[in-house]
Amino acid sequence: MNKKISKAVISRLPKYYRHLSKMKEAGVERVSSEELSRLLNSTASQVRQDFNNFGGFGQQGYGYNVKDLFSQLERILGLGNSYNTIIVGSGNIGQALSNYKNFQKTGFNLIAMFDLNPKLVGLNVNGVDVMDIETLPKFLEEHEIDIAYICTGENAAQEVAETLENGGVKGIWNFAPIDLELGEDIVVENVHLIEGLITMSYYLNGEAR
Amino acid sequence: MNKKISKAVISRLPKYYRHLSKMKEAGVERVSSEELSRLLNSTASQVRQDFNNFGGFGQQGYGYNVKDLFSQLERILGLGNSYNTIIVGSGNIGQALSNYKNFQKTGFNLIAMFDLNPKLVGLNVNGVDVMDIETLPKFLEEHEIDIAYICTGENAAQEVAETLENGGVKGIWNFAPIDLELGEDIVVENVHLIEGLITMSYYLNGEAR
Repeated sequence: MNKKISKAVISRLPKYYRHLSKMKEAGVERVSSEELSRLLNSTASQVRQDFNNFGGFGQQGYGYNVKDLFSQLERILGLGNSYNTIIVGSGNIGQALSNYKNFQKTGFNLIAMFDLNPKLVGLNVNGVDVMDIETLPKFLEEHEIDIAYICTGENAAQEVAETLENGGVKGIWNFAPIDLELGEDIVVENVHLIEGLITMSYYLNGEAR
Repeated sequence: MNKKISKAVISRLPKYYRHLSKMKEAGVERVSSEELSRLLNSTASQVRQDFNNFGGFGQQGYGYNVKDLFSQLERILGLGNSYNTIIVGSGNIGQALSNYKNFQKTGFNLIAMFDLNPKLVGLNVNGVDVMDIETLPKFLEEHEIDIAYICTGENAAQEVAETLENGGVKGIWNFAPIDLELGEDIVVENVHLIEGLITMSYYLNGEAR
């Protein structure tokens, strides 16, 4: 384990990565901390501090080489690997996630979907088969799954999460609106979509006005 | 406009709100900055600083009264108001969003959905009618819409966003993977789901190991 990096820094890394990925695609060669800070609504000194956590990648006055910085971030973030993923809960949100081309492109390979609804089981969604949730424990014995997206309703989520944990899944991306209770060895990222709407409310009607 | 509050502070307000909402429902009466900081993976001094931006709401040694703090946050965030919302793009992600009960409960009232696909137009999804996207400009003339969720594909999103802007929509919650180019008067919140997966990658395989 590396020296402790704050959650705030970590939360900005995927944003740097996203912007640099676009710059790289567009053929941009160099970027300054000022430019990066504008894209993240941050400050140039914040950007430099963030990168200093990992040794710093720029030369004063020259800015950053986009390709190099992108590669460094890729390494820091553990990307460039590929991950086997599954979706548990194949309703609207599960199906929507199966359709994000960017996930595959970034190394998150969706290999199966699961549901308990007989109307969904057996379907092929965006090229991936929806399997019976009853077969999940056996599937996990036979396949090494890195990350599972939980897209079930609130009531099923905890039981599903335990099945995934027992089956050796390393990370859970949880879209169900509950706090999962799991051991410390499994990484859980909760998605709270409503926070985006609440932020919008702040800007429209809150103290920002 | 109030004194400038940093984006980092603003990004934490919906999280405080979410946790306090749960505590209030559970009948919890008081909460310390330490307890709040654990829930946000933050520090007690960060929590106190965050609230000091708005005048501070606690008494040293007594912690915060949950009900009071919740009400203050509700006011700061502009909640307690109700918002008229629409969904443009009624595929999987649009339909999934129409089904989030929490949005309605928090004051975000979904009044219409739109799509260009004749197979979707005319459907009733979770009690809301899917209308023809061609009718959107006229609909916006006749209804005051606060917030629109853009759930179209990448190619349609910019044109849809301009129609919404011209129709007087005040905020856009953008799920399409592009940066919208709009005037400064409209609030845009972009959702980048992949950042959650990238954060997970960091914890599974990146420098966090």
